[in-house]
Amino acid sequence: MLSVAQLSRTVFSQLVVRAQTFSSLRAFAVCSPIKQAIMSYTIVERGAPNSLDYRIFFKGPNGIVSPFHDIPLHADAEKTTFNMVVEVPRWSNAKMEIATTAKMNPIKQDIKKGKLRYVKNCFPHHGYIWNYGAFPQTWEDPNHVDAHTSCKGDNDPLDVCEIGHRVANRGDVVQVKLLGTMAMIDEGETDWKMLAIDVNDPLASQLNDIDDIKKYMPGFIEATREWFKIYKIPDGKPENQFAFDGEAKDKEFALQIVNQTHEQWKNLVSKKTEKGGLACENISVAGSPFITSGEDAQSAVDQSAPPAEAEPISSEVDKWHYVKL
Amino acid sequence: MLSVAQLSRTVFSQLVVRAQTFSSLRAFAVCSPIKQAIMSYTIVERGAPNSLDYRIFFKGPNGIVSPFHDIPLHADAEKTTFNMVVEVPRWSNAKMEIATTAKMNPIKQDIKKGKLRYVKNCFPHHGYIWNYGAFPQTWEDPNHVDAHTSCKGDNDPLDVCEIGHRVANRGDVVQVKLLGTMAMIDEGETDWKMLAIDVNDPLASQLNDIDDIKKYMPGFIEATREWFKIYKIPDGKPENQFAFDGEAKDKEFALQIVNQTHEQWKNLVSKKTEKGGLACENISVAGSPFITSGEDAQSAVDQSAPPAEAEPISSEVDKWHYVKL
Repeated sequence: MLSVAQLSRTVFSQLVVRAQTFSSLRAFAVCSPIKQAIMSYTIVERGAPNSLDYRIFFKGPNGIVSPFHDIPLHADAEKTTFNMVVEVPRWSNAKMEIATTAKMNPIKQDIKKGKLRYVKNCFPHHGYIWNYGAFPQTWEDPNHVDAHTSCKGDNDPLDVCEIGHRVANRGDVVQVKLLGTMAMIDEGETDWKMLAIDVNDPLASQLNDIDDIKKYMPGFIEATREWFKIYKIPDGKPENQFAFDGEAKDKEFALQIVNQTHEQWKNLVSKKTEKGGLACENISVAGSPFITSGEDAQSAVDQSAPPAEAEPISSEVDKWHYVKL
Repeated sequence: MLSVAQLSRTVFSQLVVRAQTFSSLRAFAVCSPIKQAIMSYTIVERGAPNSLDYRIFFKGPNGIVSPFHDIPLHADAEKTTFNMVVEVPRWSNAKMEIATTAKMNPIKQDIKKGKLRYVKNCFPHHGYIWNYGAFPQTWEDPNHVDAHTSCKGDNDPLDVCEIGHRVANRGDVVQVKLLGTMAMIDEGETDWKMLAIDVNDPLASQLNDIDDIKKYMPGFIEATREWFKIYKIPDGKPENQFAFDGEAKDKEFALQIVNQTHEQWKNLVSKKTEKGGLACENISVAGSPFITSGEDAQSAVDQSAPPAEAEPISSEVDKWHYVKL
């Protein structure tokens, strides 16, 4: 008979098995592009799930890493695929995100007025309608005014909507193909939403650019635009706006944004840009003044709350809200 | 440290606590309408979840009961509220239903071509969009041609869509208010869909008839109609039809259907109608020739597969299908 601790490990090992492996750029430096070393990440959960203390740290072969700084943006040598860190699995509500100001940048739940934040279900949608997350090693610099939107960056890594059929797990590192982007304007800040698909999805070979989404998933881009437009309205906020009249831009355009925010991140992590309150500790970025030891990285975990049983979630989170525009 | 068996019991006891209590008619016979005895049910799970062997039996204070025959239709003395047996929680896909032909009528998953049946997600919907289940002590008599639809009954208990905010648990017995109905025609058979809300839902006091759904949940009836119309199309079946041009009928009309199918059930369980292959064993229906002993009822459980660890579910179930009409 399994103990709870063993059961917990079983669940954890399932997560580990399900976690996507990816090719590391560092491996590329010593291997041929065809046969690269595969590196995989596991997660380390701390605190009670559904509590203010809950944290998800990331662990590589050499110990704790930062999902913001240490996980490579590019997933292959040709830079055609990207690593995405999953923060919010499809059909869930908890607003989980990489904690940009916390050492080693664990995933934590956003807090509003002292309470854990759950995104409301706006009818007919259930929670997030994609696997939602971020591109590592990108940063929307708040000092940079975007030429397209005339708005400053939102001080976060680039947001990604992964549109494959699988419901990912929180903390998965998924290899994705970039397909396009939408330029959301959130309270005056540019907040690009990248559209991408898991390279292992059965549909991935057929989706190569934004028009393929329209062809194979009719109504999905419209639903995505509507979702972002209205999702904060039940919380008393105004509707979000989009640049380009809400039009989704193509892969080439999206790639420019990825490259631009990757450069902004490089400036951040090399201290060419002022970091403000961001935590830039990392264990692997060559030349970064923020590089730290494995022991110091581990100390961020050790100082967090110990693992504990999950707290219950109010059924209020399951409510459908009917938004009138 | 809890063992898995203990953990399982913990989860189970949570289910028990969450299971709605309800007033029994038999209690009414000896108590005043104001202060009735409250009776509650628990579930007994057998076989591995997500396997062909999985069964959910129902247990009352005196042992195993049939959710088809022993749980009273009416939940109060005034017959203004009803008991509903939850077969499919909102946002889930497994087509679970009361096994009408199995002794003591446990809930089991429908099987098509030897495989467990999961309802497809038709974009933008996720699984069932209500808590779906049945009214106990009702039966759509396949020998009866419905005056409204000119179609025969589908040989099942009446289907119910519970539209409250809470995601119920499989096997919950929920007290509901009836609000209206839609007359689906499924391959030439009448398949009424009752619309109801949990009496404990915060919105329940404001929802008293079909028009209140339209007022407080705009678009929900349309979504319900669309859902039933298209949900079998990804499996290669034609779209379902509705009587009354798809119009939802009001509470009074729905009540007539409930009463009519309750009478049809009475004829079934008293052997006035031929039962065909249906299992009519019960432990409590006064005058029924199918009444059996508690020991015999328990034997149905004992002869089923022992409890086992859940089988994994394919991520295929999470796929969104894009249906063109």
